[in-house]
Amino acid sequence: MIITLTTDFGLADAYVASMKGVILGINPEVKLVDISHQIEPQNVAQAALLLHTIYKYFPPDTIHLAVVDPGVGTSRHPIALATPQAMFIAPDNGLLSYIIDDFREPSASTLYPETELQETKLPPSLKAFHLNNSQYWRHPISNTFHGRDIFAPVAAHLSLGVPLLELGELIPSLLVFPIPHPQSQANGSLLGHIQHIDTFGNLISDVHRSNLPHGKVVIDIAGYRIEELSNSYAAGKDLVALIGSSGYLEIALKNGSAAKRLGVRVGDSIIIQIPPSPL
Amino acid sequence: MIITLTTDFGLADAYVASMKGVILGINPEVKLVDISHQIEPQNVAQAALLLHTIYKYFPPDTIHLAVVDPGVGTSRHPIALATPQAMFIAPDNGLLSYIIDDFREPSASTLYPETELQETKLPPSLKAFHLNNSQYWRHPISNTFHGRDIFAPVAAHLSLGVPLLELGELIPSLLVFPIPHPQSQANGSLLGHIQHIDTFGNLISDVHRSNLPHGKVVIDIAGYRIEELSNSYAAGKDLVALIGSSGYLEIALKNGSAAKRLGVRVGDSIIIQIPPSPL
Amino acid sequence: MIITLTTDFGLADAYVASMKGVILGINPEVKLVDISHQIEPQNVAQAALLLHTIYKYFPPDTIHLAVVDPGVGTSRHPIALATPQAMFIAPDNGLLSYIIDDFREPSASTLYPETELQETKLPPSLKAFHLNNSQYWRHPISNTFHGRDIFAPVAAHLSLGVPLLELGELIPSLLVFPIPHPQSQANGSLLGHIQHIDTFGNLISDVHRSNLPHGKVVIDIAGYRIEELSNSYAAGKDLVALIGSSGYLEIALKNGSAAKRLGVRVGDSIIIQIPPSPL
Repeated sequence: MIITLTTDFGLADAYVASMKGVILGINPEVKLVDISHQIEPQNVAQAALLLHTIYKYFPPDTIHLAVVDPGVGTSRHPIALATPQAMFIAPDNGLLSYIIDDFREPSASTLYPETELQETKLPPSLKAFHLNNSQYWRHPISNTFHGRDIFAPVAAHLSLGVPLLELGELIPSLLVFPIPHPQSQANGSLLGHIQHIDTFGNLISDVHRSNLPHGKVVIDIAGYRIEELSNSYAAGKDLVALIGSSGYLEIALKNGSAAKRLGVRVGDSIIIQIPPSPL
Repeated sequence: MIITLTTDFGLADAYVASMKGVILGINPEVKLVDISHQIEPQNVAQAALLLHTIYKYFPPDTIHLAVVDPGVGTSRHPIALATPQAMFIAPDNGLLSYIIDDFREPSASTLYPETELQETKLPPSLKAFHLNNSQYWRHPISNTFHGRDIFAPVAAHLSLGVPLLELGELIPSLLVFPIPHPQSQANGSLLGHIQHIDTFGNLISDVHRSNLPHGKVVIDIAGYRIEELSNSYAAGKDLVALIGSSGYLEIALKNGSAAKRLGVRVGDSIIIQIPPSPL
Repeated sequence: MIITLTTDFGLADAYVASMKGVILGINPEVKLVDISHQIEPQNVAQAALLLHTIYKYFPPDTIHLAVVDPGVGTSRHPIALATPQAMFIAPDNGLLSYIIDDFREPSASTLYPETELQETKLPPSLKAFHLNNSQYWRHPISNTFHGRDIFAPVAAHLSLGVPLLELGELIPSLLVFPIPHPQSQANGSLLGHIQHIDTFGNLISDVHRSNLPHGKVVIDIAGYRIEELSNSYAAGKDLVALIGSSGYLEIALKNGSAAKRLGVRVGDSIIIQIPPSPL
């Protein structure tokens, strides 16, 4: 059984190690996999997107434990979400918004990031639980570190086979922030946004392969125009546009950082011009 | 069996991976857990505090291997320490000072950090060993990397069940630096120090929950006054004082870095004013 | 069975975690060990040297998976290399140059880094394979992330016992960049280069212990002269020269960074003066 960990705790402090110690004390056989501990402090949207990108690659029944938790110690709920592919343990603060969006009609937000949380009824394929059975928590419970005292022990017990209904009670809805999706403009172009900048400086947009028309496209970003889609980072001479490994339109600079070259930041616009079909 | 690793080696070089390779070559079944490799170069006090924070959360018999070792190649001893809760493998340079302090009367240092090492007789609940049986080392032994050539193989053999008395000989004392503890002042206030600044910029003091009086306290730090203890990071509007997850008084800034706001560094003072009880 | 991972992906993005998910989906029992994900973007030479430093410390049959892959999506081949000590999975772009150099006569390059790749016939003790059996890949295959779609699944199948000849076909040669080795100068001195700067700022040269004469040596670097070899970092007062843990001549600064003090960078020269033997 695998438990993955995603936090904004970094690896210089005791936080991640303490969670691992607690988990291994309950289930010494579990396999721990770090997703990332380099989420920016309190950046729930960044962690939500990362979880969405990675969960499809793990074996079924993997438990994904995510703790980016600015509301720790307030009334926000600890929750679990069971999907057909995986289980998630997290605070109810939007961390699972992209996952839930995979199973719903797209929401209509035009803002990025839209951080206003909305209580959202779950589709029938998803089951959510309020993790309120304190019997499976670590005691005494601190007010400041539920990652160690609630989320880690609950994930460990879940990995041992304790049913979710024993760990908490079924709830019909979770707090979700609207996921940005590209919008068709009056002139026929598509308006998307940069949703992530990776370690290479590649600009990853929210425009999915399935949003793009067949045929030629022209891309405008930060005053630059890219005239075609390339097949690989090495294909172009300079700035290239291509479909990245998660299926999203991406802008890269050959052997360099597109983010630095263009001065683009998360949330900035990208416009896809769709030339009229020839008659 | 678990071996944890704490070093100042970073993760860009070959050092940590070489140690892991050596350990897995001796015990392929051991579970390796990274505590941190981001200790500042040669900062023994920082690693000592980190070890102290995490060891209580791991299962009994976990082996904690720590290598922050500016004296490598000199006459400083490689040692093991067995406590009721865990085993430690480290150079004899103060890395286990906080652990040992848990089992002794508090020392009386008023300085932070006090780096002068003192030979210290161990209490009966602790057993220390000079790891001088070179039969369990990796050969040839370098002068510069005992982490790979002495500490890693010894930890691996220990995880296989080789007794500590076979790996070295019992010694009555270790080198320990005095641990800072808060001091009562003539006017009744308590003088503590910031002993750690975490990745969020939270300021973690050496004032433990058990040092604080019942009732109202007022906290002075870096010219700021905080009038009360809060229950969570999210409770306050700005700077908050609270008892952190390890039981120490902590100063935080809601959704920001208290360290940046206050310009405070490790070793700086924090004063707890204790108002006179009403008659 | 162990699979190690070496990439330039960092740990803030989804890339490393996605590879781990794919591997664990194929072989849930494999032990994953991170070597480093902090290779500079596209720095094949840096990763090649790191692989060379660590592979000797791992148990036989360890699978070392390395993905620093600026040519992803072009015609560069995915390859495997079997050595008497270990197996490697990587793109055919020079990543295994130092490994191969261990089994060949030294090449004669005087430049560092020499990045011009040369097709190089392998010695009989090494076997290379073009990993072209797409049956063992993940589908659909992206153009931009063969780490996840080709290298990770192939390594996982290899760890399950699938023979290399089933994963691809035997090839006689690989692309290799010439490895720098120190050169004897007309005046009897030895000219080497700094091949790595570690996290402490230690300067690690390409001058191996076996290249040095018995007796006294004098070292010139960046306008400084060091008059002798020391036995440990702590031995000197200031700058020290010593034989480091991998057997190479190294310049260090006691409790500081030699790289900062001297302003030296990778590729800079180091000269070993060999005084004439007394008659």
